[in-house]
Amino acid sequence: MEALRRLVEPDMARVNQLITEHVKSDITLISDLATHLIAAGGKRIRPSLTLASALLCGYKGTRHVRLAACVEFIHTATLLHDDVVDASALRRGAATANALWGNKTSVLVGDFLLSRAFQLMVADGSLDVLSILSDAAATISAGEVKQLMVSHDLAITEEVYLEVIGAKTAALFAAAAELGAVVGAQPQMRTALREFGDALGIAFQLVDDALDYQAREEDLGKAIGDDFRDGKVTLPLMVAYREGSQEARSFFENCMEHADTIGAGDLARAQQLIRSSQGVEYTLALAARYGEKAQQALMQLPASSARDALSETVAFSIQRGY
Amino acid sequence: MEALRRLVEPDMARVNQLITEHVKSDITLISDLATHLIAAGGKRIRPSLTLASALLCGYKGTRHVRLAACVEFIHTATLLHDDVVDASALRRGAATANALWGNKTSVLVGDFLLSRAFQLMVADGSLDVLSILSDAAATISAGEVKQLMVSHDLAITEEVYLEVIGAKTAALFAAAAELGAVVGAQPQMRTALREFGDALGIAFQLVDDALDYQAREEDLGKAIGDDFRDGKVTLPLMVAYREGSQEARSFFENCMEHADTIGAGDLARAQQLIRSSQGVEYTLALAARYGEKAQQALMQLPASSARDALSETVAFSIQRGY
Repeated sequence: MEALRRLVEPDMARVNQLITEHVKSDITLISDLATHLIAAGGKRIRPSLTLASALLCGYKGTRHVRLAACVEFIHTATLLHDDVVDASALRRGAATANALWGNKTSVLVGDFLLSRAFQLMVADGSLDVLSILSDAAATISAGEVKQLMVSHDLAITEEVYLEVIGAKTAALFAAAAELGAVVGAQPQMRTALREFGDALGIAFQLVDDALDYQAREEDLGKAIGDDFRDGKVTLPLMVAYREGSQEARSFFENCMEHADTIGAGDLARAQQLIRSSQGVEYTLALAARYGEKAQQALMQLPASSARDALSETVAFSIQRGY
Repeated sequence: MEALRRLVEPDMARVNQLITEHVKSDITLISDLATHLIAAGGKRIRPSLTLASALLCGYKGTRHVRLAACVEFIHTATLLHDDVVDASALRRGAATANALWGNKTSVLVGDFLLSRAFQLMVADGSLDVLSILSDAAATISAGEVKQLMVSHDLAITEEVYLEVIGAKTAALFAAAAELGAVVGAQPQMRTALREFGDALGIAFQLVDDALDYQAREEDLGKAIGDDFRDGKVTLPLMVAYREGSQEARSFFENCMEHADTIGAGDLARAQQLIRSSQGVEYTLALAARYGEKAQQALMQLPASSARDALSETVAFSIQRGY
């Protein structure tokens, strides 16, 4: 993502500044937690998409900075609420907010960040922007609920799985990219940018789900096997389940029924069964197909250094080890 | 509130219908939980304020129905997230959503309802409306975080206490009332309606906080003493603490330090100390003063049956036993 990072660097500095300003509060819990999350950083891929898409559309103003901050606020709120949900012990290599501050704080500060995002959109004043991001927020939360409903269910279809990751992850990628065409006043580019963001988001989540079973913890910056321990059924596991022997299937069923007691030995066995079934390879191959789709969508847009940077981002997202 | 109920009855039927339509989802957890919350009903005072204020402003259209639904969605999302926070066992006389469905679901369905509210506002298309309600949402969540920060702190001032209830409760009352002037295109009435809603909201919360120590459980429809057990320091308790003997103060300090082990005997003793210090009477007297303020704000508005109904609502809110 080096080209993308360089492309958006000056704007991203302003995004960070805007974020810092808008989480300042005399309520120290809010500013402390928000600062913790901002310091943890992360790849900032979603706001980068907004910034780069705006540049791709030839935009010269400053609205994209504010909207990129909105996108990051929505993403951070989702992470905070997701931490409550999954009780993951590690995220982004640092202790999760809810491990440090408690569930209560994570829920309420997440709400605060989401509201701040809407205030920033209202200040921007475009109903198109508000429509894109409020739809994305509704899709994300519906996707998270759906994920909860199908959790522990080893028999879910690939269709349902893709529907869930399309909602919980790709919806914000798609919205983030589409915003560039709105501020750039290139309405004819909205569909292509949206398709690009959607396909990239799905590819990104597929790779995330693969890495949860096979990355090196030092690279990933969080514990391996979180999804498995949370009873979250992702594609590598689905493949191992459907390809597995009767005994393997019983083992997985037992793990999902008693996810709260999963130990290191269970995870090791699951990883071994996933290796035998090539579950990770299958997942990464599907990610590559969505990466291809993202590249095709990009090719409908005019050539530019911004387009090149986004194209490189797709390639990186597929190959990354973290 | 009989006059208010009768005044808004036809519109409220359409609000309920709109709510039902907008929580319909093939994701059964969402529709089940939303239906549960809607069936539980409650007083619907916030959306009633929007409907009645619109009528007071002479509005003849249908936008107020959609905005009243937004207000109720925001309120319900807050309740859902508040249940996670407080782990209250009872709310509105029925088991809380999180007791039935779990914390995860409450967080995510709350997020969904909040997003739906923003989608409805965007469909309405008024930036004034979006500004009022996104500001209210940010104020509410900041207030909830502040409340969390000062929880268990017996020494908070009345000023901080009023700031918290002004944010967590009155902000939505104020917004709900102000919306009537926006749809009714009576911008000169916005301030008075906002002041009315704000004062009513504070009075309403003060009475709630008093009832938590002295209502009859059958009337209140939830357990008495929830605030005390949650370590939430409200005005009746603050009064008993500041007026209490050294021994009483030590008792309260001990309770707040170990709120998780508070038993029925502790609650009974707290209630007795609150009685001796007239903490409830003090709280209700302050509520009456805010009720007076709400009435004064109403008197700045033109006389009408809607104004009468709102005035009666203030009187009811002060005197209610539930």
